[in-house]
Amino acid sequence: MSAFDKYKLSSMELPRDLKKIDTKAAGELCGEIREILIDTVSKTGGHLASNLGTVELTMAIHRVFDSPKDKIVWDVGHQAYTHKILTGRLDRFDTLRQDNGLSGFCRPDESVHDAFISGHSSTAVSAALGIACAMKAAGDKHHAIAVVGDGAATGGLFFEGLNNAGKSETNIIVILNCNEMSISKNVGAVAKYLSQLRTKDSYHKTKSVVERALDKTPVVGRPIKKTIRSSKNAFKNILLHSTMFEDFGFEFVGPLDGHNLDELEKGLKAAKAMNCPVFVHVNTVKGKGYPPAEKNPGEFHGVGAFEIKTGNPDVVTSDSYSSVFGIELTELARKNKRIFAITAAMKYATGLHTFAKAFPDRFYDVGIAEQHAVTFSGGLAAMGITPVFAVYSTFLQRAYDQIVHDLAITDYHAVFGIDRAGIVGSDGETHQGIFDVGLLTSIPNTTIYSPSCYDELRLCLSRAVNDDKGIVAVRYPRGSQKPTFGEFTSDYYLEGGGADTLIVTYGRLCTNAARARAILGNKDIKCDIMKLVRIYPIEEEIIGIISGYKNVIFFEEAYCEGSISEKYSSLCKNVTPVSLPGFIRHAPVDVLLDENGLSAEKMAQKAEDIINAT
Amino acid sequence: MSAFDKYKLSSMELPRDLKKIDTKAAGELCGEIREILIDTVSKTGGHLASNLGTVELTMAIHRVFDSPKDKIVWDVGHQAYTHKILTGRLDRFDTLRQDNGLSGFCRPDESVHDAFISGHSSTAVSAALGIACAMKAAGDKHHAIAVVGDGAATGGLFFEGLNNAGKSETNIIVILNCNEMSISKNVGAVAKYLSQLRTKDSYHKTKSVVERALDKTPVVGRPIKKTIRSSKNAFKNILLHSTMFEDFGFEFVGPLDGHNLDELEKGLKAAKAMNCPVFVHVNTVKGKGYPPAEKNPGEFHGVGAFEIKTGNPDVVTSDSYSSVFGIELTELARKNKRIFAITAAMKYATGLHTFAKAFPDRFYDVGIAEQHAVTFSGGLAAMGITPVFAVYSTFLQRAYDQIVHDLAITDYHAVFGIDRAGIVGSDGETHQGIFDVGLLTSIPNTTIYSPSCYDELRLCLSRAVNDDKGIVAVRYPRGSQKPTFGEFTSDYYLEGGGADTLIVTYGRLCTNAARARAILGNKDIKCDIMKLVRIYPIEEEIIGIISGYKNVIFFEEAYCEGSISEKYSSLCKNVTPVSLPGFIRHAPVDVLLDENGLSAEKMAQKAEDIINAT
Repeated sequence: MSAFDKYKLSSMELPRDLKKIDTKAAGELCGEIREILIDTVSKTGGHLASNLGTVELTMAIHRVFDSPKDKIVWDVGHQAYTHKILTGRLDRFDTLRQDNGLSGFCRPDESVHDAFISGHSSTAVSAALGIACAMKAAGDKHHAIAVVGDGAATGGLFFEGLNNAGKSETNIIVILNCNEMSISKNVGAVAKYLSQLRTKDSYHKTKSVVERALDKTPVVGRPIKKTIRSSKNAFKNILLHSTMFEDFGFEFVGPLDGHNLDELEKGLKAAKAMNCPVFVHVNTVKGKGYPPAEKNPGEFHGVGAFEIKTGNPDVVTSDSYSSVFGIELTELARKNKRIFAITAAMKYATGLHTFAKAFPDRFYDVGIAEQHAVTFSGGLAAMGITPVFAVYSTFLQRAYDQIVHDLAITDYHAVFGIDRAGIVGSDGETHQGIFDVGLLTSIPNTTIYSPSCYDELRLCLSRAVNDDKGIVAVRYPRGSQKPTFGEFTSDYYLEGGGADTLIVTYGRLCTNAARARAILGNKDIKCDIMKLVRIYPIEEEIIGIISGYKNVIFFEEAYCEGSISEKYSSLCKNVTPVSLPGFIRHAPVDVLLDENGLSAEKMAQKAEDIINAT
Repeated sequence: MSAFDKYKLSSMELPRDLKKIDTKAAGELCGEIREILIDTVSKTGGHLASNLGTVELTMAIHRVFDSPKDKIVWDVGHQAYTHKILTGRLDRFDTLRQDNGLSGFCRPDESVHDAFISGHSSTAVSAALGIACAMKAAGDKHHAIAVVGDGAATGGLFFEGLNNAGKSETNIIVILNCNEMSISKNVGAVAKYLSQLRTKDSYHKTKSVVERALDKTPVVGRPIKKTIRSSKNAFKNILLHSTMFEDFGFEFVGPLDGHNLDELEKGLKAAKAMNCPVFVHVNTVKGKGYPPAEKNPGEFHGVGAFEIKTGNPDVVTSDSYSSVFGIELTELARKNKRIFAITAAMKYATGLHTFAKAFPDRFYDVGIAEQHAVTFSGGLAAMGITPVFAVYSTFLQRAYDQIVHDLAITDYHAVFGIDRAGIVGSDGETHQGIFDVGLLTSIPNTTIYSPSCYDELRLCLSRAVNDDKGIVAVRYPRGSQKPTFGEFTSDYYLEGGGADTLIVTYGRLCTNAARARAILGNKDIKCDIMKLVRIYPIEEEIIGIISGYKNVIFFEEAYCEGSISEKYSSLCKNVTPVSLPGFIRHAPVDVLLDENGLSAEKMAQKAEDIINAT
């Protein structure tokens, strides 16, 4: 028994059976899908608005193309819930983002229909081109289809992909799912340009690209061509016109109404028949079919559980590291005119909306473009500005070279507010913020703070913007603070004295470490405890303290290689590091901390084991 | 006395005096500059062809704009030699790329006229926009000028910059120096597109953008407008037409003849007068004025010293790690049909021309687009292909996130041929290949080989493509092999036995380590020596060997943080790591190794010190 047995979809073999029904029946299934999406995401949390926008598009793709022989690459996977439902995963759809359940993104190890992993933005054209080139080499005539949200279209990788795909002699189709939103409102010239395209409704030329292409494909082509010719008004959008994407070498189809199945299928069939790189422009409405999400797609981009009737998502909360960061930076900026703030399409999620409202002239949302955000920061820094780039840990990875080349070599002063540092939970493997420590420490001229509570975040941020030099990162986890221990500081704090054993940690693990110490105390096992707040560079003073203990156990919520605990263990021979051994799957944060030895209980056990062994 | 006293330029105060002379006199100075460039680079080595192409453009920029109040950002700095000459550095120009001499790229710490560092490609628009936004905030009406070679125009960061710059309300001017070459021949749709623009010579419309803009700027505008109107034929290129760059929100000027000072200055004055984001398209000839370089600009891109008369550069050599890599990969590909090769605009420099000739259908030059190269490799790998991406160590930094997200999470098998790993010498700080080890080890599912000679490179490469799984990097230095020691292996080799002290190293440091051992031997100080070839992951077997010694000194040509020696020292308490402490300046490789403790003499001394101390 599945929760979805009442739906027609549950009795179909998918995606195969989608080709056996007519458009009307397919449209009815789209209604079912919307119900399932709203019902499920209201319980599991997840990306609602973007998925409501792609219901018909996904249906049309699976009716026109033949997955998994045709390969569909979603950019990013958070618009692919309908794809999951239509490729045999409906029975498990209520496990979405849950422990041992379906991923919130596409994963090749979850389904043969997920042609490529897709958690980070702007990757699909490049990945699909690789797939298309491999198909070409094998004489395989199937298509590689990249479905790209317009938010992803600001990422440089998307352009690198287009530049190579447009001139490739492959069957690659790039579908731009254009809803004029990235995560918050789109920014930049590309958005403006797409918006202009979107509102155009007639590009009349004597002979369209589509028609020319269809002339070459007699069997499939003729009927479609006839349809196009006979319905200039109803189907007016599939017509030749000059776009930036044609400059890149693509044939162009669109704009198509992304909620009109008939129009979508005709357009996609035309694209398929061309057998060359084709760019298909589809207009969708983010949140389509659920009024609260249509009205407020930003709030329904990524949501926790919510009440369907009122549509109240629990997204905007003042009790989070992000909001404390945004408010504190705004306060600091009142006194220090040199502070500018930068985000890559995450104005709300990083808490910077507060800053943007107070100082619109010193705030830049650059769109999904982390590389630019960092090099742009370099340009500001060259002029004496103090740029503060607020970015998720996992997305900072995009800017490694820019940090090295455009900030570190010149030793410019720039601050990163690294949000979602550490394990993020249900967003999973592609989004865990576990590499920023190794990334930043592998670059010279960097300083890293990892506050364990809001007060420390405020102290660290103030010091980062007003006192420090070079690249200064303040990293903090998703969500709200939990109890820490000891005095608030931006350096380090040692509690206890006289024990043989020392527990060292930083950031939100301070909560569990303090509890671990209490557990040990209850067993009459004494240990001291130290929190690091300025975790890097390595400090002689801390080495001195550590060296005084018999056993030191350093717990760290970061990938082991390049971690702070690894560094202290290379310098102090008595340090046992406990950190993350590799990629981390999706599951609740507490579950993942526990299975990696970082719950209070596991910490206490580890300490006891080490004490007993020495 | 300077070598350049005979030139008029040497008696001028630059750039100020450039504004006091007429165009004819400025043209004569351009002749002097060409002589100086050819004469100097023939002795020092460096980038010749690109600099010969930008002589008039640079002259025009410095005559029209007012550096350093106007900020000029070069993308990349290897086209900026004339800029160095024209900004007070002629007297030191013969020290170019020499120890303690001028850098081959732009450096803010070298001159106030170098507005931003520029070694890596595609950064200038973003950096200039940061500068322009800071100017705007300060009420400064000067211009930020990004001069971008068309090779850099394929990099995603360039597009991210354009997307944000086009809609900015700043005085940013982007000058595209279009010579239809990146380092080798340009690839991709953008190149084709630019090539089409380049050959257009009339875009007649009733009222040009330039004219419209000039209407708004009465003082400067009128005379220029008159000039434009009265010289439609001679000055036909500054006219409105529809380009991709206008889609990005720029006003467009061009194409201008990049070797016609008069046309350049008029065009730049028009752009300056617009006071908004302007895109200026300039056509230049790479190698202009030196027939051997004009004929063969690829060979004269980056050269060692050469003979002016014959124009024979010593670029293409069969005795290099690069060529051995290219030949061996071609041989392996004959037997293994799954091997594909990818380069980012470095077909010759990475030795892949051999492969490209043998297997054109399995070879992809993606242009300067390292992010795409890696994600594209992921797409190929998803289809069972074994992609081999040959890339300079320093440029692999561009693809950190793609390595994590598009290869490592899915554990795809992909091979990197990491060329120019380690210190590269005269290209300097921006190009040193000293971060790839820390970068790759900070990512799960990676393997790294560092062969110490050609035979080992062949062994490692074969194993990497045919036997290994996951991400496998084979890294090797610039230039040719030097004597190593012991048997050829792709694992490790231990020489000696019974000593208290062990020297460990890898890669080309094997040469110096063997010599260090000999120096110690002459003093009757015994030590064993081990070369690692498969340097990562860390091996239990090697830990076992290391643990048996009293002292282990691990010499490594990589940045200390995240290095292999750091990892062994965290696992084995008797290891002393000696690696690179930070960014490394430009100078000959041997000089830099010595000053960082990695010459044979310094290694021997270090070992002696440690032995004496214990």
